[in-house]
Amino acid sequence: MPSSIVRGKYILCKATGAQTVEIVQDAALFQRDGEILEIGKYDDIKAGHPREPELGSDHHLIMPGMVNAHHHGNFSTCLMGCPDLPLELWLSAMWARRDTDPYLDALVCCIQLLESGVTTAMHNHVRWIPPGGRSLLDDANRILQAYGDAGMRVAFSIAMKDQNRITYGDDESFLRSLPSSLAQAFATRLGASSLSGDEYLALFEELFREHDRAPGRRARVFLSPANLQWASDRLLVRMKEHAARHRTGIHMHLLETRYQKAYALKNFGKSAVAHLEDLGFLGPEVSCAHGVWLTDEDLDLLARTGTTICHNASSNLRLKSGIAPVNRMLEKGVRVAIGIDSTGLNDDNDMLQEVRLVSKIHRVPGHDQPAPTAAQLLEMATVGGARATLFDDRIGTLEVGKRADMVLLDFKRLAAPYLDPGIPLLDVFFQRAKPSHVETVIIDGEVVLHQGRFTRFNKEDVLREFRERLAQPLKPHELERKELARALDPHLRDFYRGWLPEEIEPHYGYNARS
Amino acid sequence: MPSSIVRGKYILCKATGAQTVEIVQDAALFQRDGEILEIGKYDDIKAGHPREPELGSDHHLIMPGMVNAHHHGNFSTCLMGCPDLPLELWLSAMWARRDTDPYLDALVCCIQLLESGVTTAMHNHVRWIPPGGRSLLDDANRILQAYGDAGMRVAFSIAMKDQNRITYGDDESFLRSLPSSLAQAFATRLGASSLSGDEYLALFEELFREHDRAPGRRARVFLSPANLQWASDRLLVRMKEHAARHRTGIHMHLLETRYQKAYALKNFGKSAVAHLEDLGFLGPEVSCAHGVWLTDEDLDLLARTGTTICHNASSNLRLKSGIAPVNRMLEKGVRVAIGIDSTGLNDDNDMLQEVRLVSKIHRVPGHDQPAPTAAQLLEMATVGGARATLFDDRIGTLEVGKRADMVLLDFKRLAAPYLDPGIPLLDVFFQRAKPSHVETVIIDGEVVLHQGRFTRFNKEDVLREFRERLAQPLKPHELERKELARALDPHLRDFYRGWLPEEIEPHYGYNARS
Repeated sequence: MPSSIVRGKYILCKATGAQTVEIVQDAALFQRDGEILEIGKYDDIKAGHPREPELGSDHHLIMPGMVNAHHHGNFSTCLMGCPDLPLELWLSAMWARRDTDPYLDALVCCIQLLESGVTTAMHNHVRWIPPGGRSLLDDANRILQAYGDAGMRVAFSIAMKDQNRITYGDDESFLRSLPSSLAQAFATRLGASSLSGDEYLALFEELFREHDRAPGRRARVFLSPANLQWASDRLLVRMKEHAARHRTGIHMHLLETRYQKAYALKNFGKSAVAHLEDLGFLGPEVSCAHGVWLTDEDLDLLARTGTTICHNASSNLRLKSGIAPVNRMLEKGVRVAIGIDSTGLNDDNDMLQEVRLVSKIHRVPGHDQPAPTAAQLLEMATVGGARATLFDDRIGTLEVGKRADMVLLDFKRLAAPYLDPGIPLLDVFFQRAKPSHVETVIIDGEVVLHQGRFTRFNKEDVLREFRERLAQPLKPHELERKELARALDPHLRDFYRGWLPEEIEPHYGYNARS
Repeated sequence: MPSSIVRGKYILCKATGAQTVEIVQDAALFQRDGEILEIGKYDDIKAGHPREPELGSDHHLIMPGMVNAHHHGNFSTCLMGCPDLPLELWLSAMWARRDTDPYLDALVCCIQLLESGVTTAMHNHVRWIPPGGRSLLDDANRILQAYGDAGMRVAFSIAMKDQNRITYGDDESFLRSLPSSLAQAFATRLGASSLSGDEYLALFEELFREHDRAPGRRARVFLSPANLQWASDRLLVRMKEHAARHRTGIHMHLLETRYQKAYALKNFGKSAVAHLEDLGFLGPEVSCAHGVWLTDEDLDLLARTGTTICHNASSNLRLKSGIAPVNRMLEKGVRVAIGIDSTGLNDDNDMLQEVRLVSKIHRVPGHDQPAPTAAQLLEMATVGGARATLFDDRIGTLEVGKRADMVLLDFKRLAAPYLDPGIPLLDVFFQRAKPSHVETVIIDGEVVLHQGRFTRFNKEDVLREFRERLAQPLKPHELERKELARALDPHLRDFYRGWLPEEIEPHYGYNARS
């Protein structure tokens, strides 16, 4: 609808500090063509616009749409055939997973994200060899089509690797360490999926022209070096220059595991972050997923350069990466966003569950030890992600002049059967909100989900088509990939053996040996 | 029904080792009067009992009912007025929470537990001053009545404190440090809730006679010193003797926080566990909640004595206690059970979510570092709790001769839209099972929950009554308790300041400073 009133018992506008949030009670906002023009008391807004259609009610909680700041699609890695393993082994096990149609997979994930209050996603595409004769460009366009059809905002990128594509070491020498038939299979695979820096940038240009900031569209196109060990210095520098030229963002993985930390020390004699800073790479347009193994000095560099860390609490546990030092990030003023990384706690892309895990897992022992506050959690789940996706001029808060991206939760059910008057609204939200409380989702003023019904497509049709495609038997190339992944596993374990120093001094201690 | 066949695509009988589980496929079991008489292939069982009523189907997963091995009732501490705080401050904030009817509160929690696959609970009652002229015995009987009405098994105890009831130090000297009006209010409160060791044991005897192992009943009555700092040596020894005399169990809290560890070192010059061992207190009838701050030597003592730790992953995060060293417990052969502690991750007593958190939070970084296996998780969630509640001769596994306590999950929905043939059944369960997949719960052969309907009571009626009671305004004594809790908070913070040593060497490191 071109204009409307959205009414709530509470409108949660934004965090205004580490301990404070701006909430308007018995409130409404008025939007026209997707822009928020007024926020105030319901009675006043209603008096000014008596004939406008109205959403929400006096028992809704209205909040900014959340941003899932690190996502790859991948509906259920578990069901599709990839068990949870330490990251380096998991990456190859991911080859064993079932192929899915990129459009349907992305759309099914959009359903999960919208149902849990996400209106914007940072989508990082990592699957390089599309089956069935499709090109990487085709797949990228299909994924962007899914976001378009879902009505969601997206910052889309294709993760680029120009080195060390099998392990965190030279591919040729690793291939020489393998039995010859396995080496041959992987050499073929690497050949089929090779992409030069020039080709990557041409692909980026094409996607950028087609999708980024097209009128009425909600997509941005980013650059993405997959991670430090997978990107040459030359590639990193070219991407930085390209991002500046196109005024777009860069999204990457960084220091997800101890092995990645060890790689940087071994190859550069310094931390991964220090190396990126030497290259002049860091900055406010750069967002890095994970950041589990950041040192105090790394955190200072990230804070100084305005670089964002996209925190992936569930993924970091599931893939045995660790617990990122988020309390230290917040202390030092590092920008933090939250992403589900397609490996959420319940394997279902539920952002409310992800934010809840973040709210619990950094509650470090000791009365005086820090823990993220409700205001900080809100900021990370909204503004943090808006910054990472470079949509922060438009979304992340509910304020006059911003776009009307918001979620309406049924606060009456959320706070049933009773709510003590001493409990802050945000406590109830972070402790208890579930997708079943999400009643309406609005993006750019447009209702995309209302009372369980998606307005732009029929959910059951999408799920049925997804299910029917999956009912087909596994294809020969899928079985072959499974076999390859299985054969490679022991060699990967061998490769990484002995990489880690024995001792570490953690940022946090959750228990004690003596 | 006196006898029945329960059919499943899978019957998950038990863990048979750290890496192995016994699963019968296309299976059924036959039970009569609540005893499992046969387990085998469905076709064989059906041929032997062609006219028996049949539950389940060829697309169900049948598993042993889970045991919530540490529970206090307390429907939603958040909604009832107690925010999450470090344990020592939270305990006093809990005084500020709304009174609820003990019967209704217990029954509403039973609904949540049954819906998430729990058939047995370790219920530890901690609320000592019943309002409205009720006695502690009345409340205990009402709670046991709720379990009886729900059809659940329960090991019930009342937590006893005979010292240090306000802080982890002498009450008289703490009262002297308070402003006199506050001191007076607390002295009155302590007086009103004092209970001698003799009175406690008399209360235990009465409950034991009435409920423990009465024919056809499903309740046991345990003894409970609340925690080491709250129980004198004399009380501990008397409870141990009493438990032996009545062949019953002892349940307590132990080493939940660093402050409790510091208390033992300060008062005994040794660890809490070493002190309990000196008293001859430990043993297979003893189960201890939390155990976050156990040292390597403590773990050895627990393993040697067969003492159980009831692990409370969510509570330990919410109340800033830490992460219990469960991997070390498993390595050393300590018996481990899982409890939600009425402070689950989503504040809703969901055992499936609790077990999932346990499955993730101990996935320590490093390829060779341990993590609980699916078989170990199953064992902790079933047999571990069966041992702690001393029901292990009857429940915890699905085997001939055991009682028919089990949960039927709709595996078709759990594994929708597709399940890769390489993914083990238990992975799917631990990654994805939710209460919405729980279709039927059977206890002692009796169906207590089927397709969302409780057979022994009307859920909506129970929730309506609960809601209606909560619609009444707060009573003067509730408001007074809130005021007291608020006034005490800064004094508690002062009391514990400086208790903790600066440095700890954790069992696990999840990140690193340098």
